[in-house]
Amino acid sequence: MNTIDWKPDKTNTVPVYQQIVQFIKQKIANGEWPVGFKLPSQRELAAMFGVNRSTVITALDELMADGLIQGEPGKGTRVVNNTWSLLTAASLDWRRYVEAGMYQPNLPAIQEINRAEADPGILRLSTGELSPELFPASDMKQVLTQVAHTMDHLGYEEPKGYVSLRREISRYVKRFGIDVSPSSILIVSGALQALQLISVGLLQRGATVLLEKPSYLFSLPIFQSAGVRLSGLPMDEQGIQPDMIPVHNKKQNGAFLYTIPSFHNPTGYLMTEERRRQLYQICEAEQLPIVEDDVYRELWIDAEPPLPLKARDQNGLVLYLGSLSKTLSPGLRIGWVIGPEPVINRLADIKMQTDYGSSSLSQRVATEWLAGGLYDDHVRQVRQELKKRRDAAVQVLEAHFHDIAEWNVPQGGFYIWLKILPSVSMRKLFHRALVEKMLINPGHVYHQGEHQYVRISYSYASIGELHEGLGRLARLIREEMA
Amino acid sequence: MNTIDWKPDKTNTVPVYQQIVQFIKQKIANGEWPVGFKLPSQRELAAMFGVNRSTVITALDELMADGLIQGEPGKGTRVVNNTWSLLTAASLDWRRYVEAGMYQPNLPAIQEINRAEADPGILRLSTGELSPELFPASDMKQVLTQVAHTMDHLGYEEPKGYVSLRREISRYVKRFGIDVSPSSILIVSGALQALQLISVGLLQRGATVLLEKPSYLFSLPIFQSAGVRLSGLPMDEQGIQPDMIPVHNKKQNGAFLYTIPSFHNPTGYLMTEERRRQLYQICEAEQLPIVEDDVYRELWIDAEPPLPLKARDQNGLVLYLGSLSKTLSPGLRIGWVIGPEPVINRLADIKMQTDYGSSSLSQRVATEWLAGGLYDDHVRQVRQELKKRRDAAVQVLEAHFHDIAEWNVPQGGFYIWLKILPSVSMRKLFHRALVEKMLINPGHVYHQGEHQYVRISYSYASIGELHEGLGRLARLIREEMA
Repeated sequence: MNTIDWKPDKTNTVPVYQQIVQFIKQKIANGEWPVGFKLPSQRELAAMFGVNRSTVITALDELMADGLIQGEPGKGTRVVNNTWSLLTAASLDWRRYVEAGMYQPNLPAIQEINRAEADPGILRLSTGELSPELFPASDMKQVLTQVAHTMDHLGYEEPKGYVSLRREISRYVKRFGIDVSPSSILIVSGALQALQLISVGLLQRGATVLLEKPSYLFSLPIFQSAGVRLSGLPMDEQGIQPDMIPVHNKKQNGAFLYTIPSFHNPTGYLMTEERRRQLYQICEAEQLPIVEDDVYRELWIDAEPPLPLKARDQNGLVLYLGSLSKTLSPGLRIGWVIGPEPVINRLADIKMQTDYGSSSLSQRVATEWLAGGLYDDHVRQVRQELKKRRDAAVQVLEAHFHDIAEWNVPQGGFYIWLKILPSVSMRKLFHRALVEKMLINPGHVYHQGEHQYVRISYSYASIGELHEGLGRLARLIREEMA
Repeated sequence: MNTIDWKPDKTNTVPVYQQIVQFIKQKIANGEWPVGFKLPSQRELAAMFGVNRSTVITALDELMADGLIQGEPGKGTRVVNNTWSLLTAASLDWRRYVEAGMYQPNLPAIQEINRAEADPGILRLSTGELSPELFPASDMKQVLTQVAHTMDHLGYEEPKGYVSLRREISRYVKRFGIDVSPSSILIVSGALQALQLISVGLLQRGATVLLEKPSYLFSLPIFQSAGVRLSGLPMDEQGIQPDMIPVHNKKQNGAFLYTIPSFHNPTGYLMTEERRRQLYQICEAEQLPIVEDDVYRELWIDAEPPLPLKARDQNGLVLYLGSLSKTLSPGLRIGWVIGPEPVINRLADIKMQTDYGSSSLSQRVATEWLAGGLYDDHVRQVRQELKKRRDAAVQVLEAHFHDIAEWNVPQGGFYIWLKILPSVSMRKLFHRALVEKMLINPGHVYHQGEHQYVRISYSYASIGELHEGLGRLARLIREEMA
């Protein structure tokens, strides 16, 4: 994330290495690169500045001579001083703050993925997001213009969110059999925020959350950072195996079960009607509340999925998560939690402490999409496009991977959970792909045991890119086998 | 927050009390009002439904006879069962989750304020927000239309936020002497979120934050929830008293100093140039990093405030917080943190874990405001309006409070810190005002010792409302004295 926008001006009479010295001195003088800061490698600096490595070395030598930076073999180069700190008190070492903070950093692989996704030149074979090609730009223009003309003010909303949006969501989820009033709905900045609020608002330190193994949730340290343990349960192509729950729950004393029943992330599996029925019954008997993450529900391709667990929930056992991020636009950052009113009140209070509510502008835009029927039209179109992409991806897999991998054909959502048969290091494959400007999500980020898997997404890359990228991925795997 | 939108249909042939019984049964059946849920009081229900209290009593009697609810004298009425739970397993008691969660609830007074602010009929004498009258609706329309026409896609942004917005902020803060590149800036959903990220990203459990006493930060339990202690330092009309810092720091081993040097919340005080110089020097000598909350800076009335602490920060000691919430629109939820790059990288990583970034739509709209010069024009106008409002508020105070209160005349920002001279219970005053549909923020929410104070804001209510509301407030105080 040490992105440097600046490049030396090669037409300038000041030598290029001197311009680099000045640039780095300014970074240090501003406190942007404080004492203790580790500089990018010589190779990285050369690439960022668009110069030869020797030019970088000349510049760094000068900075070392000035006593500003210091290099240790194998440890890289760090800022050790700044001109002012020679005159005044010793400079602050931020490392003890950065390293001591309570929350764990993201997994290194996730940090790399987050960084790589910001590179416009990269081919994204795993990104869990709709392709920019599928963004409904002209309808969005219409909605924004509409909102612009009806909006008279844009203040804070009520703690639970913009009431018109909650009314629309209350109306919208009725089609899945969920019948709740707006006061049982909390607007959040994406379903991820709902998980964050649940982790600190409803759980004690030391609590355990049961969940599918693998799961998206394993890729996030938020629960662990809050002192909550994750305990994976076995799943198969029909979803989580409910008969395993009582014994696990007895051993772990679960506080919640977290599940993604429809088009599970990362496996793409769809939980069957029979499994849902069993799962709800068992959780009810166990008095084990359920967090149902249903953000992929609308993205069915072949047939509508069975009703959500929440639709059978007559005991207020289920907290239900929905979102516009997967179906319309992650950039709006609009999701919702539905649950018993006292729980929603509690989460709303924590949300007020955290960010005073989600963007009112986004909430108004979301309301307009849902109210006008534009959302339904859009989702219908997305389903057709996803079908084309899924079929294309499966075709490429059949052509290039038939002898080196196994996969399911997902009935909706974004993901194919690709099991690589030869013994190949996924970490190595990930980095080789990155060098070739391709991004894949290795299975181990979704559970450390899943080292044979890659999550492929057919939602983001274009069909042409899927052809090219998956072809190249198969070639890389074959090279690794050789 | 138990808002009930529904009212019985008095033209219906079904008796009103029966309609209420059916309504409540449905709430219970849906799990919205789960077992253990405490119903609103009879008086509140009567008001919500627009019926007599006797009708409510008839309905509740029937529900009690059905075994669904139970009332205990002095403890209110709770849901004790539901029709299905008689047939199936015992229903889940969510109270143990709501009460056990790690994060503390907001202070009861803050919860009451949050709720009351959602009531459109209330006169808000303390709200720290610009009046809807000052919302630049026509310019916002123009900006939205502009964004609508240039936007081709609305996905997730880079971990630090939309790069064009970070470039605009980098350019914008140069006018206050802050010279940083976009990679040292993190976009957040309001300055409050920055504090949340700092609390879990840079602090250890048991750490201490030094801050002004009173302070806005005392009104938020987020730091305490994260196990961080707040230790107040004395302040006067020139700001925090810097010579007190070393002894406090020695005793408390402070991890940070949090300060609002410009138009402090809640006192309205402006830290002088001399104090800023001393404060920075002392913190530098103490190696005590500073969180500078500067969200009111642009709202000066009489003269531009001295340069921020960050402008003197050659050692990367200061994390600087800015926001559009106070100057333009809190509904955008756009703020920023500026600091050393490794610290910003760390906070960006935590933000990705928390909500995957702020609304892209809000970020684009903010960019357009800053880039086009519209923001400067708007803020200039806001300053003129604030001057009128401040002068009006001071005039009313002189007319009605001269013998019962003391106050400063703020040079900018939103607040007058009103010291009530007679011995009056502020809690009682708060509740009496609420009954009269007026909202004031009692001083004790900003520090428990400040029980003689009320934070008055001249930014939200209209000048007419300020006249009326403050006049009535003076009358209430006189009645309490009597």
